[in-house]
Amino acid sequence: MRKVALRLAYDGTDFVGSQWQPNGRSVQGVVEIAWERLTQEQRRVIFAGRTDAGVHAQGQVAHVETDTRHDTATIQRALNALLPPDVAVVQVDEVAADFHARFSARWRRYRYLIDTALVPLPLLRHTVLHLPQPLDQPAMQAALDVLPGQHDFAAFASGHPHEGPTVRECYRAVCETVTSYDRPLLAVELVANGFLRHMVRTIVGTLVLVGQQRMSCAAFAQVLASGDRQQAGPTAPAHGLILLDVGYAADDVW
Amino acid sequence: MRKVALRLAYDGTDFVGSQWQPNGRSVQGVVEIAWERLTQEQRRVIFAGRTDAGVHAQGQVAHVETDTRHDTATIQRALNALLPPDVAVVQVDEVAADFHARFSARWRRYRYLIDTALVPLPLLRHTVLHLPQPLDQPAMQAALDVLPGQHDFAAFASGHPHEGPTVRECYRAVCETVTSYDRPLLAVELVANGFLRHMVRTIVGTLVLVGQQRMSCAAFAQVLASGDRQQAGPTAPAHGLILLDVGYAADDVW
Repeated sequence: MRKVALRLAYDGTDFVGSQWQPNGRSVQGVVEIAWERLTQEQRRVIFAGRTDAGVHAQGQVAHVETDTRHDTATIQRALNALLPPDVAVVQVDEVAADFHARFSARWRRYRYLIDTALVPLPLLRHTVLHLPQPLDQPAMQAALDVLPGQHDFAAFASGHPHEGPTVRECYRAVCETVTSYDRPLLAVELVANGFLRHMVRTIVGTLVLVGQQRMSCAAFAQVLASGDRQQAGPTAPAHGLILLDVGYAADDVW
Repeated sequence: MRKVALRLAYDGTDFVGSQWQPNGRSVQGVVEIAWERLTQEQRRVIFAGRTDAGVHAQGQVAHVETDTRHDTATIQRALNALLPPDVAVVQVDEVAADFHARFSARWRRYRYLIDTALVPLPLLRHTVLHLPQPLDQPAMQAALDVLPGQHDFAAFASGHPHEGPTVRECYRAVCETVTSYDRPLLAVELVANGFLRHMVRTIVGTLVLVGQQRMSCAAFAQVLASGDRQQAGPTAPAHGLILLDVGYAADDVW
């Protein structure tokens, strides 16, 4: 039995999310269908992280156990020919038997984009949150500065209790300006060893309150310290979010 | 009677083109419908340039004659509320009676994007041509260097004869690398006082032959000099193209 890892990019707009669901078109579902058509194997394709409906990916990682004899280049080419145009396999590698897309991952990197201009650009409407209000970027960066390190992120998790430990280690939390179609966008980039459900979107939703000067940086730090979801701001919409990358130990190939 | 100029951005994917057509959804059509709903006026909205189905715009310009008393800020806000999400009015200005979106325009700026990576990124599939072959960028730039100046561009026009003069003045022709989703893309940018039908796409289709080393720079120059469409390469697909901007004299406001 071989184990193969896939790096996936997708446009999340027309998916119910990354994870298989009984009703609706999921990324996992279409990849598993393509896998079966290629190999005649009905296999679970295990994803590094769950992305919600509308959330995009540039470097999602998944693994699958297989008996196929196809080499990795053939697997990549064939899957891309079988997959719909909103999912692509950008890399395929043979990995060790103990590699696990989710449990072996050391870090995930997400980016959230916000456009504060008065009028949204149509070409950005599926990938950028339009919020036509000035945001105080230095204040947002100051608030983000409390995130690096190990914390209980329960305040920024979705409302579901009993979902296990809520301590995560954040490695990077940066708010910067990027440009798309000559338009300056606010990009919030977060890197952590793991993320709770809705964590990036709730951090961004709370951070926007700081940017609007409706919450102080000290209050943002208190939200984190409180561990109380009620203290945090709203969950930002899904479509501004993209999973950029998932990192592994050097000896895991990726 | 007032005259108002609109700067429009649109995602060309779901349009039959900018220009009104008896069948199909055009940008002009949806703008005219929004205009009528706002003002109860049935008016032609005159565009600076025609873009084909699938071609996008960041700064298309149009004008309309009107008796409405709404101020420009109200017109912009109301049109954006009435327009579908794939068209936006990014600027509205009162212009002089002799302003004409098409005839007053001094220059147009277009950009064409090409991704030469093996696997296309799903998020770029509607805005970037995927051509998984290495392209010789310095050779492409050398070929483009023959374009600036005044030339008969008949060789790069669509097959229709009798469409009037084919001499245009090119102000800029550059091939550079831009980055989107961490992926390097080849961007061909052309500025000219005007463009013939399919001219940018035919220049790009011919330029790709140079990039693939199937045509020399000298041969590219000979294609231009020949004035013969048969000598040029294929018309590149529409979806890689965007109309970035249209320029006017300083006293025309824009």
